[in-house]
Amino acid sequence: MPEKQDTRKVTPRSQDFAEWYNDIVQRAELADYSPVRGCMVFRPDGFAIWEAIQAELDRRIKRTGARNAYFPVLIPMSFLKKEAKHVEGFAPEVAVVTHGGGKELEEPLVVRPTSETIINHMFAQWIHSHRELPMMLNQWCNVLRWEMRTRLFLRTAEFLWQEGHTAHATREEAERETLTMLEVYRGFVEEYLAIPLIVGKKSAAERFPGAEETYTIEALMGDGRALQCGTSHFLGQNFAKAFEIKFLDESNQLRFAWQTSWGVSTRLLGAVVMVHGDDQGLRLPPLVAGTQVVVVPIYRKPEEEAAVMASARSIAEALQAADLRVQLDSREGLTPGFKFNDWEMRGVPLRIELGPRDIASGELVFARRDLKGAEAKSKAAISEVTVRAKTVLGQIQKSLFDQAKAALASQIREFDSYSALRKQLEGEGGGGFALVYWCGEPACETKIREETRATCRAIPIGQSGAGGKCIVCGKSAADRAYFAKAY
Amino acid sequence: MPEKQDTRKVTPRSQDFAEWYNDIVQRAELADYSPVRGCMVFRPDGFAIWEAIQAELDRRIKRTGARNAYFPVLIPMSFLKKEAKHVEGFAPEVAVVTHGGGKELEEPLVVRPTSETIINHMFAQWIHSHRELPMMLNQWCNVLRWEMRTRLFLRTAEFLWQEGHTAHATREEAERETLTMLEVYRGFVEEYLAIPLIVGKKSAAERFPGAEETYTIEALMGDGRALQCGTSHFLGQNFAKAFEIKFLDESNQLRFAWQTSWGVSTRLLGAVVMVHGDDQGLRLPPLVAGTQVVVVPIYRKPEEEAAVMASARSIAEALQAADLRVQLDSREGLTPGFKFNDWEMRGVPLRIELGPRDIASGELVFARRDLKGAEAKSKAAISEVTVRAKTVLGQIQKSLFDQAKAALASQIREFDSYSALRKQLEGEGGGGFALVYWCGEPACETKIREETRATCRAIPIGQSGAGGKCIVCGKSAADRAYFAKAY
Repeated sequence: MPEKQDTRKVTPRSQDFAEWYNDIVQRAELADYSPVRGCMVFRPDGFAIWEAIQAELDRRIKRTGARNAYFPVLIPMSFLKKEAKHVEGFAPEVAVVTHGGGKELEEPLVVRPTSETIINHMFAQWIHSHRELPMMLNQWCNVLRWEMRTRLFLRTAEFLWQEGHTAHATREEAERETLTMLEVYRGFVEEYLAIPLIVGKKSAAERFPGAEETYTIEALMGDGRALQCGTSHFLGQNFAKAFEIKFLDESNQLRFAWQTSWGVSTRLLGAVVMVHGDDQGLRLPPLVAGTQVVVVPIYRKPEEEAAVMASARSIAEALQAADLRVQLDSREGLTPGFKFNDWEMRGVPLRIELGPRDIASGELVFARRDLKGAEAKSKAAISEVTVRAKTVLGQIQKSLFDQAKAALASQIREFDSYSALRKQLEGEGGGGFALVYWCGEPACETKIREETRATCRAIPIGQSGAGGKCIVCGKSAADRAYFAKAY
Repeated sequence: MPEKQDTRKVTPRSQDFAEWYNDIVQRAELADYSPVRGCMVFRPDGFAIWEAIQAELDRRIKRTGARNAYFPVLIPMSFLKKEAKHVEGFAPEVAVVTHGGGKELEEPLVVRPTSETIINHMFAQWIHSHRELPMMLNQWCNVLRWEMRTRLFLRTAEFLWQEGHTAHATREEAERETLTMLEVYRGFVEEYLAIPLIVGKKSAAERFPGAEETYTIEALMGDGRALQCGTSHFLGQNFAKAFEIKFLDESNQLRFAWQTSWGVSTRLLGAVVMVHGDDQGLRLPPLVAGTQVVVVPIYRKPEEEAAVMASARSIAEALQAADLRVQLDSREGLTPGFKFNDWEMRGVPLRIELGPRDIASGELVFARRDLKGAEAKSKAAISEVTVRAKTVLGQIQKSLFDQAKAALASQIREFDSYSALRKQLEGEGGGGFALVYWCGEPACETKIREETRATCRAIPIGQSGAGGKCIVCGKSAADRAYFAKAY
């Protein structure tokens, strides 16, 4: 139970989104800056969201047949160099261990920025025959990519994630796996985090270093900028060739394996804050909220305390027994209004208020965090509190998704002239997703990026339109792509 | 489902315990060596045991009121130096990051060997008043302590663990917390891993660097050596003073906090192997076994296959529906005998064998991994398979504990002459715990260590005996202590 309340004002979201974000993350005690530049601290209320994410996503990953394993955090520098694009992409951002046990090392080791190299080195030891395929492993761990500018959850040198790595006998199977995991991520983020997504392929420029194809899920933040929420890579045989992952197929031919890798990170916590939060604080989707329901007893006279507290306690216990995550706010010396604000800041989806008159009438007050004003409040019979709480939590989960979905829909704009696109992207705010025909040439993509700072976020899969003209060069373009300014 | 079988012979346990251990760990596919010296790879069957440990221990830790958080993996070298004994203990074994993002760092960072320093730095920011106490955090993470000699699970540079860190208003409360966590560890390891323990205080020489008192749980391995399985430290105000963790108490006086830290690691997996394993392979306690029951269908004639497989499948499904972790061994081209050996190697507690005659008679065969020969086998009615399997798994859990308990009891010896102690410790094997009076002087402890290589493992708490004479110097000694050769 929190004991203190930081009484500084939160910067309004509309005034300065970045400041608002920092205020919320720290006031809701999700995270804090650390003394190590680029690194952050996950406080219990923030880590609890990550634990809820881990528990559910782990179940979904295992359901696809992958199993968890763990590989060393330190990787020989020479491993990174085995795949040309991989080293080019990651070498500039690694942290390098040069000394260990009081001595200089013969070969420097890097703290893993991702684990393709070391995992594929082991795959090469373990895989010999098609009978050992597919090999599908996942690991939950910390990774490090050097950053000096810290944005809590979004951009930190160290972050937590899961990284899946698979090896298959055929290209088709590996391609299917890439899309299977993309769909696992989409389903999880939309259903669990209540964040609607844009899904598609990355352009060549935005691909994972070493991948043949990268697929992405992209979300819209409250300030109109895009956030990449997860990626799934088809690696082809690039790493298999670099690390010699060969197997005998059914006709006894030696073949290189086909591979994938895929990951989501603690960045998702930043997305939850930036998609759902408002000027009063966090708004957590019930499925990932550390506390789903808070019970606030209300009384003015000391003689009312015993009865109200007893009733509040029995309600909290009933909710807990029904597998809800509940807190009873029994803090003394704080007004109900103060407590309401505090729990709103922390994003608890449902608040139950309970006073002497409520007890007398057999009803109590439900206050939903996803709605405002009179609409947020309703009465519920004390005798039905568990059933009603579950129903309302389901409604809140859906309502947060619907609100975010409407926000996303309102921020997707189609353009067919480059000047109109520039005007939108360069204008006040300049946010949202622009859906435009693009010929696929890097030169046109670069022009958009350099002139508007928007990047290609995703190219929807399986477009079957008639095609159109590239918004930059006017040449014929088969597909449309989403461009946006991004985190 | 494993597809291959390594056909090399396992070194007998009695012949070379260390070789036997390595053979088992690798043949059962728990772990593998990595290309990074000192680091290891946790394979899925090994990591599944760690996941089972994490799930249960996490519940027990949270039940005490601690919450999970996460702190940076990199720690400024200067932090380590703030507590004199701490830096003395850990500086020689740290890995040092000197370069990041392509540049040399202004201050070198160490990969955490443990997190007292960085966590207590943050505690100092968060703790101001007695109302914020106790603060009780736990983190599951990787740590690194430089080692060149790898012993899978037991001695590796990187290992996984949980580390709890707490701050309290009073000495008494912190001391109580230290013992509470010791008891959490004891209960978990004995009940869940079926490993009986010796519990007590460490001598000053064996204390955690920076602690006022270290408590330990110690187990006996199959070769008679001791293994420290977990520690709980009373830190006094050492770190609070080094990091200025001060709070206003109820009478508005500024005080330093009182602290504890406590941890167990993936070393526990090594203990499970070394306590329970035999020449046929692993023997996993049902509560932590990734697979608790394996169903092996047996048939000779092709026309029997359909009926046996259908029956085996429905039995496996019934067991699964009853929340047991089950595998159906439907591999083709392998004899039943081969499969039996394979699952014995992997330590699956209960094997169910099922052939056409069993189906006809409505009974199947249970084979317990904890027993040998005829004793291991029994018949069970197919209609009662789930209930019987649960009962038998409970019996196996208990039987593994009882076997280990008997082994421990047979290896605890009391000595009252130093020559007899030396003779035992220097003799063939030279294992087991020696329980002897010790005056508490470091000189006597050093003499035992230097002459016999046995160290003081634990001094039982709350001894109320009459006291005796120190086995080394003959001076009066209040307490007895356990000495043993240790991993």
